[in-house]
Amino acid sequence: MKTSLKQNLAINFQPISQCVRVSFNYDVHFTRGLFKLDNSLLAQAIAADGHSAAKPVVAVIDGGLLQYQDKLLEKLLAYAQRYQDVFTLSSEPIIVPGGETVKNDSRFIEQIHQSINLGGLCRHSYVLAIGGGAVLDMAGYAATTAHRGIRLLRVPTTVLAQNDSGVGVKNGINAFGKKNFLGTFMPPYAVLNDFDFLTTLDDRDWRSGIAEAVKVALIKDRNFFDFIQTYAEKLANRDMDIMERLIYRCSQLHLEHIAGSGDPFEMGSSRPLDFGHWAAHKLEHLTNYSLRHGEAVAIGIALDSTYSYLTGQLLRSHWQQILTTLKILGFALYLPTLTEQLDRPDHPHCLFRGLTEFREHLGGELTITLLQGIGQGIEVHKVDLSLYRQAILMLQDWELSSVLSN
Amino acid sequence: MKTSLKQNLAINFQPISQCVRVSFNYDVHFTRGLFKLDNSLLAQAIAADGHSAAKPVVAVIDGGLLQYQDKLLEKLLAYAQRYQDVFTLSSEPIIVPGGETVKNDSRFIEQIHQSINLGGLCRHSYVLAIGGGAVLDMAGYAATTAHRGIRLLRVPTTVLAQNDSGVGVKNGINAFGKKNFLGTFMPPYAVLNDFDFLTTLDDRDWRSGIAEAVKVALIKDRNFFDFIQTYAEKLANRDMDIMERLIYRCSQLHLEHIAGSGDPFEMGSSRPLDFGHWAAHKLEHLTNYSLRHGEAVAIGIALDSTYSYLTGQLLRSHWQQILTTLKILGFALYLPTLTEQLDRPDHPHCLFRGLTEFREHLGGELTITLLQGIGQGIEVHKVDLSLYRQAILMLQDWELSSVLSN
Repeated sequence: MKTSLKQNLAINFQPISQCVRVSFNYDVHFTRGLFKLDNSLLAQAIAADGHSAAKPVVAVIDGGLLQYQDKLLEKLLAYAQRYQDVFTLSSEPIIVPGGETVKNDSRFIEQIHQSINLGGLCRHSYVLAIGGGAVLDMAGYAATTAHRGIRLLRVPTTVLAQNDSGVGVKNGINAFGKKNFLGTFMPPYAVLNDFDFLTTLDDRDWRSGIAEAVKVALIKDRNFFDFIQTYAEKLANRDMDIMERLIYRCSQLHLEHIAGSGDPFEMGSSRPLDFGHWAAHKLEHLTNYSLRHGEAVAIGIALDSTYSYLTGQLLRSHWQQILTTLKILGFALYLPTLTEQLDRPDHPHCLFRGLTEFREHLGGELTITLLQGIGQGIEVHKVDLSLYRQAILMLQDWELSSVLSN
Repeated sequence: MKTSLKQNLAINFQPISQCVRVSFNYDVHFTRGLFKLDNSLLAQAIAADGHSAAKPVVAVIDGGLLQYQDKLLEKLLAYAQRYQDVFTLSSEPIIVPGGETVKNDSRFIEQIHQSINLGGLCRHSYVLAIGGGAVLDMAGYAATTAHRGIRLLRVPTTVLAQNDSGVGVKNGINAFGKKNFLGTFMPPYAVLNDFDFLTTLDDRDWRSGIAEAVKVALIKDRNFFDFIQTYAEKLANRDMDIMERLIYRCSQLHLEHIAGSGDPFEMGSSRPLDFGHWAAHKLEHLTNYSLRHGEAVAIGIALDSTYSYLTGQLLRSHWQQILTTLKILGFALYLPTLTEQLDRPDHPHCLFRGLTEFREHLGGELTITLLQGIGQGIEVHKVDLSLYRQAILMLQDWELSSVLSN
């Protein structure tokens, strides 16, 4: 018997190759009046798993939002009351500061964890995060680490969060002065985009989010760029109808990319969606986050498009269309920070230092995306800093002449 | 043109259904003398990604190990020196306490994050965690949250870690007095099982890890249970050859389960591998972790097997084989904690309170695994506490009679 057991067990101590496949499914919804009592979308999203008991929910709300939506809390409480058979708020909603501040202090994470603990939430309970990208990032990190992952419902309230960051798979906070130093790749349970939140955005936040749409259009979808170009002035003038269409298409392109990239958790070095972002991240940091992310991205796009033109890959006419569209949308394409310490690429204040930091955060070899045409990104692993210096000076000229012509 | 754009963009604001599929591949290696200079396994695992530059590595070492392996640090440093073209230790190795202590204090996580920051590590760099399950869990949580995931190399040094926790996809620490309240599901980059570490384990740690092998055998593989039963005395007497075969088969069964379960990140309620664990978790807590995890699991297995017998699902002869095998392996199957507050299921000191806590951590409805036969687990969602009380008394009798017969 012993011999047969030995054979059965087939012991040879060869390495065991493990392949773990995980599928995450979630819906991105588009609505208006999310917390109106007759809008059952949120309740339906929670009830969708078929379990009958009312689920505990911890709500996290972007305090910045309450300035413009002063009835939001009452609405949420009334909504919870109306759908009490589906969910209950296990504590008072947690109000946190909006914007990058919330990602710079780990106490907000602890506060959410505490609330999850006190409410006895489990992996089938929910964190409902309502706010801009920074609040969603932070609340998502808290949710995805409690019990190794509580369900995350994102309600993005800015253009940027609705068309980009809020629909993706990243969560995180800053640490050691580094953006997103801590975080997780973990998809949300559902995303609920309520267009009504956009009507009260200030102009900078309205505009800022359009930069990510320009970005994804430039690297993936020429038709979509044509759409933005055609309606640039309407977008600048806050046309809601056009904005809704822009958000829908932009989030769709982001979602398609994440699902189809083959590397949704970014284990390799390729990062095509980060077009224009190496400079943007550095600019945000250098300006102490006085630039909005989208404003920095617009400059990053202008810079990398100009560089793409200088390397001979992008047609002059396309380059001009890109810069003109960004200008009509209302973006500044140059600021003095771009030229600081330009000849000292390792200086912490030099923009080019952003290339090193970008590589370090993503890992592996330097990989940035440039343009071969409108709608056509291409990855490169080496850059010519002298051409980049030239591109920066061209942006300076362009900005100057567009100021003069106004 | 505007009309055709509208058509092309096909705007209708229907929900977008997203499916993100992620594949994680990693190898579990078996070796001896991992840090011997002529053993290139670790260096090969790091070099496997094909990038040429030497990779920075932060090493985290279980301090408990250094009592028995007093040359370990020197060996690691010499190994790093020998393979300096493949990797460099970016800082002094971080020595942390072994055992559950390390999971109760978030400062160790911060220490590792700090070291990752100072060393400029990126997602293509490595955290090398060497130690028992608790240290691997903690270091894994730190690694998988820095930059949203640095590569984790696990070197499990106990039986339990080599055949179970160290080969799986879970990382975590305790918080708010709850085991694994914080954590991530994220597979390691590679696992390197070095059997030589087992020779210096104390008897309790040697034995403790065998409980998980008994567990997985009972629910999945009758042949494997026969193997354990046949060699129980040899295992108790520290036969290395048998132990190596046990570890290989047990880790294989765990890996197969994780890959084949359809729910590796445990988003549903089913948890078949947690046979015997609802009671085990509670017992660890009630005894203030003076019980090893495996010792608690052995009692949990004995209890749930006895209950399975009492419900008429498990043959009496099988039930006896299970208890006898556990006894020969050297496990105690009863301790007075089991009978404390037994008639008050909601009392924090009552074992049955563990059923609620188990459900809360896993989420969804109560799901525990029982036995229909040896090698055949079955999930149930309701239990009969009076039968469980009877099962506890039977264990008490069994333990008493086995003490008397010795």
